[in-house]
Amino acid sequence: MNKNFKGENKMLNFTFYSPTYFAFGKGKQEEAGKLVSRFGGHKVLIHYGGGSVKRSGLLDAVCASLQKENLPYLELGGVKPNPRSGLVYEGIELCRKEQVDFILAVGGGSTIDSAKAIAAGAVYAGDFWDFYEGKLIEHALPVGTILTIPAAGSEGSPDSVITKEEGMLKRGATGDAIRPCFSILNPELTATLPKYQVACGGADIMAHIMERYFTNTKEVEVTDRLCEGLFCTMLKELPKAVRNPADYDAQANIMWAGMTAHNNVVGVGREQDWASHNIEHELSALYDCAHGAGLSVIFPAWMRYVYKHDVMRFAQFAARVFGVTMDFQNPEETALEGICRLQNFWSSLGLPVSFGELGAKEEDISFMAENIAYGETGIGNFVKLKAEDVKEIYRLAL
Amino acid sequence: MNKNFKGENKMLNFTFYSPTYFAFGKGKQEEAGKLVSRFGGHKVLIHYGGGSVKRSGLLDAVCASLQKENLPYLELGGVKPNPRSGLVYEGIELCRKEQVDFILAVGGGSTIDSAKAIAAGAVYAGDFWDFYEGKLIEHALPVGTILTIPAAGSEGSPDSVITKEEGMLKRGATGDAIRPCFSILNPELTATLPKYQVACGGADIMAHIMERYFTNTKEVEVTDRLCEGLFCTMLKELPKAVRNPADYDAQANIMWAGMTAHNNVVGVGREQDWASHNIEHELSALYDCAHGAGLSVIFPAWMRYVYKHDVMRFAQFAARVFGVTMDFQNPEETALEGICRLQNFWSSLGLPVSFGELGAKEEDISFMAENIAYGETGIGNFVKLKAEDVKEIYRLAL
Repeated sequence: MNKNFKGENKMLNFTFYSPTYFAFGKGKQEEAGKLVSRFGGHKVLIHYGGGSVKRSGLLDAVCASLQKENLPYLELGGVKPNPRSGLVYEGIELCRKEQVDFILAVGGGSTIDSAKAIAAGAVYAGDFWDFYEGKLIEHALPVGTILTIPAAGSEGSPDSVITKEEGMLKRGATGDAIRPCFSILNPELTATLPKYQVACGGADIMAHIMERYFTNTKEVEVTDRLCEGLFCTMLKELPKAVRNPADYDAQANIMWAGMTAHNNVVGVGREQDWASHNIEHELSALYDCAHGAGLSVIFPAWMRYVYKHDVMRFAQFAARVFGVTMDFQNPEETALEGICRLQNFWSSLGLPVSFGELGAKEEDISFMAENIAYGETGIGNFVKLKAEDVKEIYRLAL
Repeated sequence: MNKNFKGENKMLNFTFYSPTYFAFGKGKQEEAGKLVSRFGGHKVLIHYGGGSVKRSGLLDAVCASLQKENLPYLELGGVKPNPRSGLVYEGIELCRKEQVDFILAVGGGSTIDSAKAIAAGAVYAGDFWDFYEGKLIEHALPVGTILTIPAAGSEGSPDSVITKEEGMLKRGATGDAIRPCFSILNPELTATLPKYQVACGGADIMAHIMERYFTNTKEVEVTDRLCEGLFCTMLKELPKAVRNPADYDAQANIMWAGMTAHNNVVGVGREQDWASHNIEHELSALYDCAHGAGLSVIFPAWMRYVYKHDVMRFAQFAARVFGVTMDFQNPEETALEGICRLQNFWSSLGLPVSFGELGAKEEDISFMAENIAYGETGIGNFVKLKAEDVKEIYRLAL
């Protein structure tokens, strides 16, 4: 039937499948037990990070909710930011030994990613790390989440990032089987977050939008506009949430933006970039900094390195999200002004925008750049990058 | 944990569940058979409207795809715009007699809505019309769709609208059980649509956005921005698609906008209005006009009747989607200019914007206004409306 159409067709074919059930709002953690039952769980591993979910009373509330449904459970805490493979192996062992059939992650992206890795590994005969070296995840125990920080978008995504201790390899895995069957999003749970963590989470969300936005795919107005809408939301709400993490309204807007920024509803049908995430992973693996802080350093540098590849796309970004007046004689000025505004915005929130502020060191640049797996064609899609390019980007971030 | 928060909390609690699998792009109708199998179908009722799906070869392609998977099927065509209960009863009878376990809708919103009604009725002991008088649909046969016109959003929604012949009652039903398990969205299939139908479909999509946008819920920037993004997309792409329905790029953008405008990802957490849809239903029930054409007549009239309730929301709409310069001394001017621009936009696409152009008659106003079920509080949420208000709105549309 193609014959009816003239000209090039630009939007790419795609599939979109986001079956996660979202329960959003105040008090929703009390529904955890009912949701585990609804999605087929009988014996639960509650997975979490440090003591904050205990101190806040969240863990008690979750346990009470499971007890109310007569669901037996085990606990496995100790997930660290940039979650490690060691704890994943421990979780897999525990699930097998105790015949756990449902993983409930209570925490942020690190906890959810660790839970996804356990869920995939528990039903796989080989080493779970295979998935982080490229094998698609086709089977996993069901995972539910109770999100405590909007950032990674893992609550609605089919992705997980884990760091392997030997060699500090930070790698991602994917598959619809690890999409959470439900996610509880209660903005109240973010009220006690440190301001810096709120800022880092916001930077991560903004980066997820930009990784999709900077594309070579033409004629994708609908996803351009949706990305811009989410970005504008962050510009309005993030400063409020950083000033006062207990601003429910700001956190609620950010929480829904964080999910929609990464379940791919705003990214379908277009080539996406993701080089900056790759380049950042080396920073957080080496210095154990927050992922969002690393992105805040890397993204503006990446933008300055690649903007000439499509000045008009960067000008569109500047004009539509930052309200920069278009300079029709010199669109490049508009493009560059947008990059400045982004960097100033992040800086104003207390985020680092240079190596020095992050505690990163110039002498590590070669090691980091050469540690990345470039494959045959390089990383990224907007512009393909090799080690020499990445070194330049790190230098632009000094 | 509420104690951590200060001030009012505005975004409403909500659940969001959109498990439909979307296969989007060229040639995707060829995957119909595989998708029916994947989602558990063994014997299929193919449901469609008039001859266009036969003439275009689409029906043949769908049958071939089912045959390839060894799936037996029956056909039931004849769905009309503003689909009728008579054919629904026929479909239910057929499904029971032939032990059909999967309904595949091939067409636009009317066909999909009719398929949903059959799917719900086939597994219900009572009269399917119960659902259209307010009973929640909790069980139904699985439904898949192959969309041929972006408009109703039924391909990703839990809703169905059917007209009962006796009394020409046009009513809606809802329930997650009738969300399509898959929907095939191929913009190629829209290439042969008449221009007027493309315009009507676009008006319907824009109306779905506005029904969500005009709300009394405060502090919902994320869904405001997402709605505005979809609306801007329509302003750019719809004129191109009306000029040339075979413009793949324009139709692709509109198709994804049409789904996202109505699966509620842009409408969660806020009170929605829906009065204009109610008011329009009387027009299309009485004159059998296209739903989108009726909305194009009613929506600007509704806006003029209610805008004073929240001038700043209408000013925001005008400024952000139509680029109207904000008149800070007289925001009402900005608000009104936005309504004019919308009406001019629809008029420029050949859509009716008055009773006369639609073939509607002043003398029917009382009958239509009094035919609506107002309940105790009236229809709509932005402003609650009773019969006298609706008569005024019809008069504003004369």
